[in-house]
Amino acid sequence: MAERRLKHWGWGYEDQAPTATQLREAAEGIRARFGFGGEVEKPVPLEEVELRASRLKRPSGLGKAYRDVVRGFYGRFENPPDLVAFPRDESEIEAVLSWAEAEGAAVIPFGGGTSVVGGVEPRVGERPVVSLDLRRLDRVLEVDPASLAARIQAGATGPGLEDQLREHGLTLRHFPQSFEYATLGGWIATRAGGHFATLETHIDDLVESVRAITPRGTWESRRLPGSGAGPSPDRMLVGSEGILGVIAEAWVRVRPRPRFKVSAGVTFKDFDEAAEAVRAIAQSGLHPANCRLLDAAEAELTGAGDGSANLLILGFESADHPVDHWMDLALAPAREHGGSTGEVRTSGGGDDAVGAWRGAFLLAPYLRDTFVACGVLSETFETAITWDRFEEFHATVMETTRRAVAAASGVPADGPGAPRVSCRLTHVYPDGAAPYFTVLAPAIRGGEVEQWDEIKAAVSEALIDAGGTITHHHAVGRDHRPWYDRQRPAPFAAALRAAKAELDPAGMLNPGVLLDP
Amino acid sequence: MAERRLKHWGWGYEDQAPTATQLREAAEGIRARFGFGGEVEKPVPLEEVELRASRLKRPSGLGKAYRDVVRGFYGRFENPPDLVAFPRDESEIEAVLSWAEAEGAAVIPFGGGTSVVGGVEPRVGERPVVSLDLRRLDRVLEVDPASLAARIQAGATGPGLEDQLREHGLTLRHFPQSFEYATLGGWIATRAGGHFATLETHIDDLVESVRAITPRGTWESRRLPGSGAGPSPDRMLVGSEGILGVIAEAWVRVRPRPRFKVSAGVTFKDFDEAAEAVRAIAQSGLHPANCRLLDAAEAELTGAGDGSANLLILGFESADHPVDHWMDLALAPAREHGGSTGEVRTSGGGDDAVGAWRGAFLLAPYLRDTFVACGVLSETFETAITWDRFEEFHATVMETTRRAVAAASGVPADGPGAPRVSCRLTHVYPDGAAPYFTVLAPAIRGGEVEQWDEIKAAVSEALIDAGGTITHHHAVGRDHRPWYDRQRPAPFAAALRAAKAELDPAGMLNPGVLLDP
Repeated sequence: MAERRLKHWGWGYEDQAPTATQLREAAEGIRARFGFGGEVEKPVPLEEVELRASRLKRPSGLGKAYRDVVRGFYGRFENPPDLVAFPRDESEIEAVLSWAEAEGAAVIPFGGGTSVVGGVEPRVGERPVVSLDLRRLDRVLEVDPASLAARIQAGATGPGLEDQLREHGLTLRHFPQSFEYATLGGWIATRAGGHFATLETHIDDLVESVRAITPRGTWESRRLPGSGAGPSPDRMLVGSEGILGVIAEAWVRVRPRPRFKVSAGVTFKDFDEAAEAVRAIAQSGLHPANCRLLDAAEAELTGAGDGSANLLILGFESADHPVDHWMDLALAPAREHGGSTGEVRTSGGGDDAVGAWRGAFLLAPYLRDTFVACGVLSETFETAITWDRFEEFHATVMETTRRAVAAASGVPADGPGAPRVSCRLTHVYPDGAAPYFTVLAPAIRGGEVEQWDEIKAAVSEALIDAGGTITHHHAVGRDHRPWYDRQRPAPFAAALRAAKAELDPAGMLNPGVLLDP
Repeated sequence: MAERRLKHWGWGYEDQAPTATQLREAAEGIRARFGFGGEVEKPVPLEEVELRASRLKRPSGLGKAYRDVVRGFYGRFENPPDLVAFPRDESEIEAVLSWAEAEGAAVIPFGGGTSVVGGVEPRVGERPVVSLDLRRLDRVLEVDPASLAARIQAGATGPGLEDQLREHGLTLRHFPQSFEYATLGGWIATRAGGHFATLETHIDDLVESVRAITPRGTWESRRLPGSGAGPSPDRMLVGSEGILGVIAEAWVRVRPRPRFKVSAGVTFKDFDEAAEAVRAIAQSGLHPANCRLLDAAEAELTGAGDGSANLLILGFESADHPVDHWMDLALAPAREHGGSTGEVRTSGGGDDAVGAWRGAFLLAPYLRDTFVACGVLSETFETAITWDRFEEFHATVMETTRRAVAAASGVPADGPGAPRVSCRLTHVYPDGAAPYFTVLAPAIRGGEVEQWDEIKAAVSEALIDAGGTITHHHAVGRDHRPWYDRQRPAPFAAALRAAKAELDPAGMLNPGVLLDP
């Protein structure tokens, strides 16, 4: 049997691409629904791709940002790595680092390659680049059922580690949109956001200890449920995006698979009222597992509504006790804020509405490929903001985005053919929320990258000017750098730079993300 | 009216010291109960204290570790600061830092002076020292009721900030044992542990953003409910113990005062069974506000039992909904593990059993002063460990401590007159617990510091050898350094050292804590 090959430009495997008929039907639907897009083009086949350098292994995609997908579609791989290394153990990671340091090469740790922010793209100038692909370090090495923790190698993918944990009746329950391909090491390096809308919103909260290989030795923290001994070593590695060391493995907090689940949809006429309901729930101490608010356009886009109402998806789950009482309590403030509650579904832990929604959620990256083929530019922006500024922030960003996308796409900001901008809240906190904006616009064929760059810059400005973060869970990478630099405290940047210089004096680890090369 | 003066050697104000009669009665009680101690001595009065240097303001105690209290009792202030500065605003903090840098002086940020680990003691060799006392920065500057957050100056004490928040119907609900005197800035600098036994166990979790003055500029993070933009700047400052900058203020997460409370005591014959019950509750997702397990000796010591049974104090609280259902669910595993439940008390938010216990808890530091006067050495050790290692860890540390204390105190390890070692769990996690050990032994009069040093070293070795952390919430300071150095990842230490050198090239900020001077 031929080995299954990942698409060289988009999401998933080659055999998961839509057929010509499916694409044509999708194109017709897109045109009918959005008033733009619908001219199907074909990607430049892998065989016609020409790559720059010589010491080369064919890349299976170097990032999954919109601009990566578009460039891949056109066969433009401007920054291939010069070498791809597949270490089988830590000594091989060390060997690669030593060799690269001697050669003056850069090293970019590579997990699933699902970065949407240029986090693993060898955009490092003339310096030769080694892509350090951790796919062979994919094992759950140890399970501690008493502490509900597991030691897992950095290259384990979402499905891979869940399969291995399932044998023990356990689960990490970390389901970012990249779940299917992304890896534990990548999640830790980028502070990935996951399944839970409250409490453990980021992988940060699931990390018990980390083991990383730095050019100056092994960084391994103790397994501790909590500590107050100096600044947290783990919290310095979490989000370090490969610049301090190569994460080799981690102890993470797992849990029994949920036995009790209850979910409900609540519709609201008014988005701000819906957000107020979400605020009340986020501040109630009820800690729903799911608390996702889709505005009317977003609900329509994901097939969860007809575009007339905002939809709040609420879910509670537990391995310990029925959670119906929690749902009853959470629905009260939702109703007080004008919400209409539909059917409340209780399930024994199998498939349910939340599960179905999750399936659609995980399919979204595939959909983007269809959009690219059909001439639709699609992009997302995600951030976080405190509740006191939420309403104005949301209005400002929606408006700025609509205008910026229209300007960059040569279409009117309103009316037929105007860009679609929608919003959902992916995670919520007692003190604020994480809004996630989706943009759809007619693509400027062949000029998508420039078009995207212009939109990205305008929306990012708006997010930062209005007090948000440049990313709640997509990481900084190379694409978010200008705004990240404005956001972070200057002395912190200096401290991080000094820390990196100490551990990586050659500056070889993923140069350009977080800090200048 | 004369200004109220803090005791120069122990806890609280001078007028809170026990009378001669009270002390005599305490001494009799101590002798009867422990079989050691009971010879009352008087502290060296402040008027007889001789201090080293000339540029001096009288210190009101430089730390509240057992060794500080004993040295103060004997009038030994070997390391007074050369100057105490009381900045009224940030520009005065900056001025002190500039002046000190030019003078070659060290600067030690000072909050309530409640450190029990030598965190604020000017033990820095020949270098002159400025104690930067932040007591004048004691205001709640801003309240954001929508986001449930408040901007508070670093020098605000527990009661001070609670008084100001109460006007808004809000509370931080952070009640470390140092609550009465300690400050927000001190809590953030030392990762203080607070009221909540689960979820927000440390001040870390209550911090929304921090503003600190470093020698290289102001470090201010954005107010964000969550972020994924690089390593968290706040998490680098939290626990930095004054070595990177002077924390001036912070936005912290506050909450409405609880309206619903329920508490219960559960007794267990067997400590390990009780710990298993606690583990089940910690892994249930019920998140009790209080889940404190006292072993039989600890229960007796705090007047909460007769020494025959282990006591679990369980509490739930909410400003949103009644919490009786939570208690019902949590008591089930407690009973399954052999627990006998007493009366379950529901209260409308006023005083209750938990409140009463908290009162006794906050009085403990005063009791230590009485012990010192009566010839009893008292000390505590606290740590954290995962559940898989808990039972063996607990047994090993108890045994090691008993033997070490006996050896250092010249008494038998068992039988009459033997040292008392007891344990409680102060905070619990799904993956482990934070055990807190209390030691009482006959003091070697005049040799208490050496006796304490010997005990401290032996127990700390045991904690680190067995895989724990040298501190769960008392911080590192100077006293925990040897074991902290063994615990932390070497590359992390190098990174922290480089970060400090970048921000504080003169090495003037609290030299000796966390890193070598």
